[in-house]
Amino acid sequence: ERTHCNLILQMEGENNDKFFTHPRNPKALAAYLFAHNHLFYMMELLTGLLLMVLSLSEAPAVPSLRLDVYVHATLELLALVMVAFELCMKLRWLGFHTFIRHKRTMVKTCVLLLQFVEAIVVLIRQTSHLRVTRALRPIFLVDCRYCGAVRRNLRQIFQSLPPFIDILLLLLFFMVIFGTVSYGFVWLFSSQYFNTLENSIVSLFVLLTTANFPDVMMPAYSRNRWSCVFFIIYLSIELYFIMNLLLAVVFDTFNGVEKMKFKSLMLHKRSAIDHAFQLLVSRQRPMGLSLKQFDGLMRFYRPRMSARDRFLTYKALNTAGAPMLSLDDFYKFYEVIGLKWKARRSGEHWFDDLPHTTFLIFKGINLLVKSKAFQYTMCKWTSIISSGFSSSRIVPWSYIVFLTIYGVEVLLKVTGMGPLAYFSSGWNLFDFFVTVFAFLGLIALAFDMEPFYFIVVLRPLQLLRLFKIKQRYRNVLDTMFELFPRMASLGLTLIIFYYSFAIVGMEFFADVVYPNCCNTSTVADSYRQINVTIGNRTVLDEGYYYLNNFDNILSSFVTLFELTVVNNWYITMEGVTSMTTHWSRLYFMTFYIVTMVVMTIIVAFILDAFVFRMNYSRKNKEPLLDPEGKVFEAEVSRDEALATLELYKQTCPGLSSLNSLQGVLVAMDRSGSSFLVYLGRRSRTKSDLSMKMYEEEIQEWYAEYSRENLPQSDRSLVERELEIPPPCPDPEPQPNSQGPLSIN
Amino acid sequence: ERTHCNLILQMEGENNDKFFTHPRNPKALAAYLFAHNHLFYMMELLTGLLLMVLSLSEAPAVPSLRLDVYVHATLELLALVMVAFELCMKLRWLGFHTFIRHKRTMVKTCVLLLQFVEAIVVLIRQTSHLRVTRALRPIFLVDCRYCGAVRRNLRQIFQSLPPFIDILLLLLFFMVIFGTVSYGFVWLFSSQYFNTLENSIVSLFVLLTTANFPDVMMPAYSRNRWSCVFFIIYLSIELYFIMNLLLAVVFDTFNGVEKMKFKSLMLHKRSAIDHAFQLLVSRQRPMGLSLKQFDGLMRFYRPRMSARDRFLTYKALNTAGAPMLSLDDFYKFYEVIGLKWKARRSGEHWFDDLPHTTFLIFKGINLLVKSKAFQYTMCKWTSIISSGFSSSRIVPWSYIVFLTIYGVEVLLKVTGMGPLAYFSSGWNLFDFFVTVFAFLGLIALAFDMEPFYFIVVLRPLQLLRLFKIKQRYRNVLDTMFELFPRMASLGLTLIIFYYSFAIVGMEFFADVVYPNCCNTSTVADSYRQINVTIGNRTVLDEGYYYLNNFDNILSSFVTLFELTVVNNWYITMEGVTSMTTHWSRLYFMTFYIVTMVVMTIIVAFILDAFVFRMNYSRKNKEPLLDPEGKVFEAEVSRDEALATLELYKQTCPGLSSLNSLQGVLVAMDRSGSSFLVYLGRRSRTKSDLSMKMYEEEIQEWYAEYSRENLPQSDRSLVERELEIPPPCPDPEPQPNSQGPLSIN
Repeated sequence: ERTHCNLILQMEGENNDKFFTHPRNPKALAAYLFAHNHLFYMMELLTGLLLMVLSLSEAPAVPSLRLDVYVHATLELLALVMVAFELCMKLRWLGFHTFIRHKRTMVKTCVLLLQFVEAIVVLIRQTSHLRVTRALRPIFLVDCRYCGAVRRNLRQIFQSLPPFIDILLLLLFFMVIFGTVSYGFVWLFSSQYFNTLENSIVSLFVLLTTANFPDVMMPAYSRNRWSCVFFIIYLSIELYFIMNLLLAVVFDTFNGVEKMKFKSLMLHKRSAIDHAFQLLVSRQRPMGLSLKQFDGLMRFYRPRMSARDRFLTYKALNTAGAPMLSLDDFYKFYEVIGLKWKARRSGEHWFDDLPHTTFLIFKGINLLVKSKAFQYTMCKWTSIISSGFSSSRIVPWSYIVFLTIYGVEVLLKVTGMGPLAYFSSGWNLFDFFVTVFAFLGLIALAFDMEPFYFIVVLRPLQLLRLFKIKQRYRNVLDTMFELFPRMASLGLTLIIFYYSFAIVGMEFFADVVYPNCCNTSTVADSYRQINVTIGNRTVLDEGYYYLNNFDNILSSFVTLFELTVVNNWYITMEGVTSMTTHWSRLYFMTFYIVTMVVMTIIVAFILDAFVFRMNYSRKNKEPLLDPEGKVFEAEVSRDEALATLELYKQTCPGLSSLNSLQGVLVAMDRSGSSFLVYLGRRSRTKSDLSMKMYEEEIQEWYAEYSRENLPQSDRSLVERELEIPPPCPDPEPQPNSQGPLSIN
Repeated sequence: ERTHCNLILQMEGENNDKFFTHPRNPKALAAYLFAHNHLFYMMELLTGLLLMVLSLSEAPAVPSLRLDVYVHATLELLALVMVAFELCMKLRWLGFHTFIRHKRTMVKTCVLLLQFVEAIVVLIRQTSHLRVTRALRPIFLVDCRYCGAVRRNLRQIFQSLPPFIDILLLLLFFMVIFGTVSYGFVWLFSSQYFNTLENSIVSLFVLLTTANFPDVMMPAYSRNRWSCVFFIIYLSIELYFIMNLLLAVVFDTFNGVEKMKFKSLMLHKRSAIDHAFQLLVSRQRPMGLSLKQFDGLMRFYRPRMSARDRFLTYKALNTAGAPMLSLDDFYKFYEVIGLKWKARRSGEHWFDDLPHTTFLIFKGINLLVKSKAFQYTMCKWTSIISSGFSSSRIVPWSYIVFLTIYGVEVLLKVTGMGPLAYFSSGWNLFDFFVTVFAFLGLIALAFDMEPFYFIVVLRPLQLLRLFKIKQRYRNVLDTMFELFPRMASLGLTLIIFYYSFAIVGMEFFADVVYPNCCNTSTVADSYRQINVTIGNRTVLDEGYYYLNNFDNILSSFVTLFELTVVNNWYITMEGVTSMTTHWSRLYFMTFYIVTMVVMTIIVAFILDAFVFRMNYSRKNKEPLLDPEGKVFEAEVSRDEALATLELYKQTCPGLSSLNSLQGVLVAMDRSGSSFLVYLGRRSRTKSDLSMKMYEEEIQEWYAEYSRENLPQSDRSLVERELEIPPPCPDPEPQPNSQGPLSIN
C-alpha cells in the first residue's frame, strides 16, 4: 500500500504522468521502477546525444572528425538498439493497449524503425544515401526524461501556431497585394528586384525582414522620388503593424498556455495528494495521518532523508499541532518536501562560538564589510581603476594596487561573513571569480604565458561590479540568473530546430557554394574572391560569403545563426538558389518563419518574465528575491524528541537514522534549553511566485475541482485500477496520553 | 453661477486643465473664453503648421518650392507675431504669476523670442545663417489644443526615459567590454572593422542593429572558425537579451503611465462633478438637482442640444426616478453627455412603414442578404475571381460578370438594410468602395484613360473581402481601425522628431554626399556611379546611396525613414562621416536611439492594445466591439412630456426648443400609447473599456479620493477662488404633487 501511495505521489506530483499510464500489474510495476531512475534516464540521454553527435562524422563530416562509414553506421545501430530496448521497457510498463494510444511513443517507434532500415542500408551499401530522415533524430533526445522542458516548449510552440498562422496569412496576403501592385507600375519598378512576379514577391518577403532595404527601393527612387511612398506604406503595414501583431498574438497565447499549465500542475498535485491520503488513512481512524504512517511513506518516497528531517517535515505540515495530519495539512506536502532543515542559532555569525577577543576582531570586520561606506569606497575604486585601464601589456602600478585591495576585500569578506555565507551569494561568487581571474591574468603577464592572455583581456569585466549598486540592475541581473534555466531550455529547443534544418541543408546544399560561384545571381559580388590591383598593390578582394555554407554540421549551424540574425540573409539564399533550383528559397523562407516563431516566443517569454517580476514586486511590495527563500519553522520540545526516538527504536532500529535524532537531543543538552526551533529553507521557485500571483484563481480552480471529483469516488477508482486489497488494519496506536504533541 | 459651473465641468472634465489655471476675474474670463473656441484653436494649428512648412522653402529648399529670403522671412515673422498674440491672450487669462509658473508656456516664450531675433537677422542679412534652432519649431505645433495626444505621447516618452536609460547604459557597457575584448585579440580581429578602439565600438554598435552582420564577422571567421563564438555571444547578450529587456521595461512603464493617466482623468472628472454639483444645488434643497437647474446648466454647456435631448439626458441620469438628481446620479454626467437619442421603433427595419407588398419584397431581400448562404456564395465568388485575376489590361469576361454580381450585391444590401444601416458599418463601406473602385477601373480601361490605371492595379484588394469571414481577422482589423487615432498621434510624434533631426541634418550635412564621393570610406562602393564595360556593353554601375542625403527636407525625411528601418543605415552614416568629421556619427547614433525609443513605444502600444483587447473579451465573455455601442434607456410618459413642455414654456419660450418636445407628444399620438421609450446610443470609448477592466481599482481610487477631499471644504475653496456671490435663492418649486415623476 505504501508503495502504491508513494508511486502515486511521485508519478502524479513530480513526474506528472497521467493516470492511465500507471502500471497495472506487478510485472508492469517492475518495468516502471526499472525505467524510472537516474541511471536509465542517463542512458536515454546519452543514446539521444550520441545519435545527434554522429552527424559530426557522417558523410559531409567535419574534416577532423570524419569516421569511416562502417564505424559510424555501427555506432548508429548500437544506439538504435539501445533506443529499442528502452521502448521495450516502456511497452512492458504501459501494456500494449496504452502503448499504442501514446502518440509520442508511437511516433518514436516509427522513426526508430525507419532509422534502423536506413542504417542497415548504409552498412550494406557502404555509403551514405540522401538521408533527410536524419532530421528526425532529435526526437530521441526530446523524448528523454531530462528534456521535459524542451518538450513543454515544443508543445507551447505548436499551441501558439494556429493564431500565428492566421496572422501570417494576413502578412502574406498583403505581400501578394503589394507584389501585384508593384508589378502594375512596371515603368517605375523595372529593376532586377521586380522583373518577374516571383522576384517581386521574393523581394517583398526579404523587404519584410528589412534585409534588402534601401537597395530594393533605390532604382525606383532614382527614377521618381515619390516611389518611396510605396515602400514606406508597405513597411508601415507589414513590418510595424502586422509583425507586432504576430508578437502580440504569440505573447497572449503563450501567457494563456503558461497559466493553463500551472493550473493543471496544481490540480494534478492536489489529486495526487487526495489519492495518497485516501490510501494512507486507516479505516479505524479516517480522520488523519499519524507520524508513524507518514514516516513509513517518507522512507519509501525519499530513502535518503534522515529520521530527524522526516520528523521535522511532519512537524512543518502539522501546523495546528493536532495529533494527526488532516487532509488540509497534507495538501502542503509538495511545498515542504524539499526543505533543508537547520537549527536556529542563537547568534547569526559563524564566529559566535569563538573566544571573545577573536570574536571582537571578526565582529569588527563583519561590521566593516557590511557598511555602506566600505561598499561605496570599493565602487569608487572600481570606477577609477576602470577609467584608467588600457589593454596594453604594461600593467600600471595603480592596477596592481587596486587588485591587491580587491584581494584584501575578498579575504576580509570571507573572514567577516564566514565562507558559507559568503559563497552562498551569487554576487560574492562573482566578485571572487573576477578577482581570482584578475590575479591569474597578472601571473600570466608576469611569467609571459601566451595562451592565458585572454584572461588579461577579460579585465574590463571588473566594471560589472559597478552594477551591483543600483536596485534596477540587481533586479535585471537577478532575473537574468533566474531566467537562465528557462532560456537554456528555449535555446536547446532552438538548437533542435537548427539541427533538423542543418541536416536538410547538408543533404541538399553541401558543397554548393564556393569562391567565385553564383556568377549568374545578383549577389555574385559577395562570393567573389579575386586579386585586384589598386595602384601598384595587389589586394585580395574577398566577398567571404562562400564561407556561409552547409559543408558540415558546424558550418551549417553558423550559417543558420546568420540566417536567424536575418541581416543580409538573402545573400546566402540567392547564392544557394543560383547554384541549385528556385525551390531552395522555400527552405530559407521556411527557416525564417520557424525561427521567427521561436524568437518571438523567446521575446515573449523574456517580456513576460520581466513584466511578471515587476508587477509582482509592485503588488506585494516586497523584493521578489527574498534572500531567505521560503522558510518554514518547526519547534521541537525535549519530550517530543524523546518520544520520537522511542518510536523509531521500535519501528526501524537502524543506527544511522537514530543518530540524526540523537543529534537533536545533544544540541538541546548543549544549549541547555528544553526546546529547539528548526528552520526549513528552500529557494523560491516560479511555482511559489505563481501561487501568490494567481491566489484568487487558484481558490476557484480548487473549488471547481472538488465539485467535480469527490474523494470518495476517487478512492474506489484507484483501488479498482491497482487491484489492491483493502488496507490492512494498523497496529494498535499507543495510548494517546501525551497531549496534543503525542506522536502517533 | 451657471457659467462658472459650466466652466468647471468643461475645463476639468473635457479640457483637463488644472485648477490653478482657472481664470480669476472677469477680464481673465473674457480672455479664457476668447482663447477656447475652435476658431482660435484652428489659428494656433495653422500658425504652427505654417512655421513647420516654411522649411520646405528655406535655404536648402525643395527645388520647386524655393522662395526668396525676404518672402519666407516675412512669412515667418508674420507667423511668429501670431504666436506672440496667442501668448498674450494666454497671459491675460492666466495672469502673470501663473504664466511664469507654467513650464511649457515659458519654454514656448523663450523659443519665440529666439526665433524672432533670428528671423529679423535673416531679413537684415538677406541670407540664412546656421539656424539649428529651427529644430525647435515643432514646439509651436505641439502646444496647440488639437495636439493634446502628441503632448501626452511626448510626456509618456519622457517618463519612460529613466528606466530606459538605465538599461541603455547596461547595453553600452557590454558594448565597451566586447570592444576591448575584440581589441585584445588583435591577431584575430585585425580588419577594417576593428583597427582602432573607436572603430571597434562603432562596429559593435552597428552590429547591435545587425546592419553589418555577417560582413563584420567574415574576416575573423575566415581566419579562425571559432571566432564566430565571439559574435554569437555578443548578439545573444545584446540583441536577444538586453534589447528585449529594453522592450519589457518600456512596456511596463508605458502600462503604468497609461493606468495613472486614466486614474487622474477619472478623479479629475469626479472632482469637477463634485464642484459643479456643490455650486448648482440650492441652499434650500441641498439634496439634489431639479430638472430646471439641470436644464439651465445644459443650455450653457451644450447650446446646440435640443430641449428633448436635455430632458432625456436628465432622465438617463435619474435612474432611480427620484424627484431630484442626487450626487451619485450626477457622477454619470460624462457618460451620458454624448448620447444620441432615438425613439425605440416597434420594428427594426427602415421599410416597416411602407405598404405591404413593397414591405414583403424588401423583407425578402433583407433576409437574403443576411443569410449565411448568401455571404458564403459571395466569398466563394471572391476567391474564384481573385485566383483568376491577372494584372494585364485585357479584362476577362468572368471579371466583368463577377463585378456585376458585386454591384448587384451592393444594391441589394443598400435596399435590404436601408442606406443608413448599410453605411454605418465599416465593412459595408469597405465593400462599397472596393466595388466602386473596381467599376471606375473598368471605365478607365474602357475609355483608355492612362492616369487612372492605378485603380486597375488595386483590383487585388478585392481579396480583402475574404478576411471578413473569420472572427480573428475581424478582430484584428477592428482593432486596427480602433487603434488608428492613437497610431496617428504616435506617427505625428515620430514626424516631429523627424522634423527636428531633419533640420539639424540639413544644417550640417546638406550637399555633403554626391555621386562618387566618400572614396576614403569603407562604403565607397555604395556611392559609386561609373560606366562599366562588360563584354561590349556599357552599363552604368550605380551605388545609389548618394540619393540618401540631407539636401532638402523631403530627402531628409526619406533618409531618416531609411535610418529608422535600420538596415544598411551605417552606409549612410559612414558616407557622411567620411565627408565631414567623426562627430557626425553622434548624430546618427542619437537618431538611432531616439527612434528606438519611439518605435519601442509603438510596439509596446500595439502589444498592449491587442493583449488588452484579448484579455477583455476573455474576461467579459462578450465581443469587444458591441455593434450597439453603449446604450442608455429612458422611458417618457405622456404626463411627464406635458409637464416638461409646460416648464419650458415658462422658462424659455423660444419656439425651436419647444418643437422637439412637441415632437415627442406627436409621436405618442401616432403610436397611440401613453409612453415612449427612447434609446441613447454612443460608441464605446477606450475609457468605457478601461472602466470595466479596472473596476476594482476605480472603487479604491474613489474611496481614497473621497477620504482626501471632502466636498464641503471644496465648495468654499472654489467660491473663494472664483469670488462668486452665494447662490441666489431659486424660484419657489411647484407643489410636489405628481409623484416620483414630477419635474422640478
